[in-house]
Amino acid sequence: MKKYLRLFSTRWVLLAILLAGPVIVFAQDDLVWNPLDPDDTVYLQLQEGTVVIELNPTFAPKTVKQFKVLLEDQFYRGLSFYRVIDGFVAQAGDESDIDGSRDSPTLKAEFEIQWPMKPKDKKEAKQWFPLPWTLVQKEDLFAPYTGFINGFAAGRDNNKGGKAWLTHCPGTVAMARDTDADSSSTDFYIVIGQAPRYLDRNLTVFGRVVWGMDVVQRIKRGATKENGYIQGDMQRTWIKRMQLASSLDTNEQLNIYTADTNSKGFKAMLKERRNRGSKFFRQQPPRVLDICQVPVPARLEKK
Amino acid sequence: MKKYLRLFSTRWVLLAILLAGPVIVFAQDDLVWNPLDPDDTVYLQLQEGTVVIELNPTFAPKTVKQFKVLLEDQFYRGLSFYRVIDGFVAQAGDESDIDGSRDSPTLKAEFEIQWPMKPKDKKEAKQWFPLPWTLVQKEDLFAPYTGFINGFAAGRDNNKGGKAWLTHCPGTVAMARDTDADSSSTDFYIVIGQAPRYLDRNLTVFGRVVWGMDVVQRIKRGATKENGYIQGDMQRTWIKRMQLASSLDTNEQLNIYTADTNSKGFKAMLKERRNRGSKFFRQQPPRVLDICQVPVPARLEKK
Repeated sequence: MKKYLRLFSTRWVLLAILLAGPVIVFAQDDLVWNPLDPDDTVYLQLQEGTVVIELNPTFAPKTVKQFKVLLEDQFYRGLSFYRVIDGFVAQAGDESDIDGSRDSPTLKAEFEIQWPMKPKDKKEAKQWFPLPWTLVQKEDLFAPYTGFINGFAAGRDNNKGGKAWLTHCPGTVAMARDTDADSSSTDFYIVIGQAPRYLDRNLTVFGRVVWGMDVVQRIKRGATKENGYIQGDMQRTWIKRMQLASSLDTNEQLNIYTADTNSKGFKAMLKERRNRGSKFFRQQPPRVLDICQVPVPARLEKK
Repeated sequence: MKKYLRLFSTRWVLLAILLAGPVIVFAQDDLVWNPLDPDDTVYLQLQEGTVVIELNPTFAPKTVKQFKVLLEDQFYRGLSFYRVIDGFVAQAGDESDIDGSRDSPTLKAEFEIQWPMKPKDKKEAKQWFPLPWTLVQKEDLFAPYTGFINGFAAGRDNNKGGKAWLTHCPGTVAMARDTDADSSSTDFYIVIGQAPRYLDRNLTVFGRVVWGMDVVQRIKRGATKENGYIQGDMQRTWIKRMQLASSLDTNEQLNIYTADTNSKGFKAMLKERRNRGSKFFRQQPPRVLDICQVPVPARLEKK
């Protein structure tokens, strides 16, 4: 009986507050949920489960375009995560193919964009509207401003106009490359540890994991002394399939919704997390937010 | 043949630089390696493998003392990680025991200490020496100063004297509690995601994972909508054993060494990571360091 009571005691309630974010937000009517666009959604199927990635053609149009061609060609099928460093990145692609290499075109760097975006021509101007920016933090350690742009964590060098870029947070998907900034081709990585923000503006970020980070965390690691490289094929996590959601029948697609980071409910969540008024905190935490420690809620609906 | 060449091409070399830290450091003669003290080392054995935790009696003397009693009693054996939120924490302990609750004493908060420490009395003064502080960053988003104290990531409110506390980074081990700051007892959590630094100075951090974070990352997650709680016993990751290294025979103990964060080699690594002079970077990253994104190298030696 004592145990039963404890289950509904303050501990449970307060741990919920401790977590903040999602728990509070789910009760908010002002939170808007957006379905994923199947044309910009990737299913990465591993033995451990399915990972859902949202592509970002706004920040990396050329990279996303080529990536979609590779997906259509089933390029990644049977390849593996050949370089996996716990706390850093899981990298997969061409390099893992021991039988030979496909010569995919190299890509121009897409490290940052001008922001706010402007319409390219009169035709575009007619249907143009500025993408919303939701400020999270001024004077972040790594950027003058951080915030969200349509669900993606981003940095800006000026809150009014200038450069904007997608930040390296856990779940960020970006292209690997050589020394040459324009040398990325097919190999990509997923950030699996504390945000390596020093990579911001130096690699092309083109997507984010919206579902299945727990699956990503089960990808087999390499040894630190080998710099994460896993030589034995059998020791690696393999890609069973990697395909665009829109290439599947509608009834095979997953019904995933992500929180609109420009909605009132999300902004209320940011405020809540920043101010942390709960009695749980004996000392008021600094009223700041780490952009990579703000979860963007996502949910899977049954059909 | 082409493939063979690629294996030794710039890509490999530069990814090594990209990772920086460990790879460069391992070549440094100035890096000092310290063995773990078996009396402050915990082996957490899960089905997925063994996790090695270093306890910190300097910052949390009472908590460590009670924790050792619990280990001696084999208290955690057969308990489980009952609350696991991907990207946040994995929590285990008493709460997972559905058959009943042991009434362990609650602990006074050990959230921070005075720093530098001073000897308590004349006797201690004779053998007293100040613990070394290795500065990492001034004006971190969450603390006036961050740095390392004997391998542990810490924050300080003043670089000369004042409060010091252990920061919440991936791998940090701390005590769970209720609203009451002095209510922690047996349940602990391991940070498994982006550093929840807002918890700093509000919970008792008493250890860090020095080996096996890849194992920790395989701990089964709970659902977000359940706030990470896993109701079904069979869905949880169980603790096979959790014991102090010194309770085992010497030949059963693991030979783990961790980098001395006060050594010249480690400080050189910090400098290297801060300045990132490699040609890989098209844009110089900001010359700052996130304390939780600085790996403290560790290695396992065969006997």
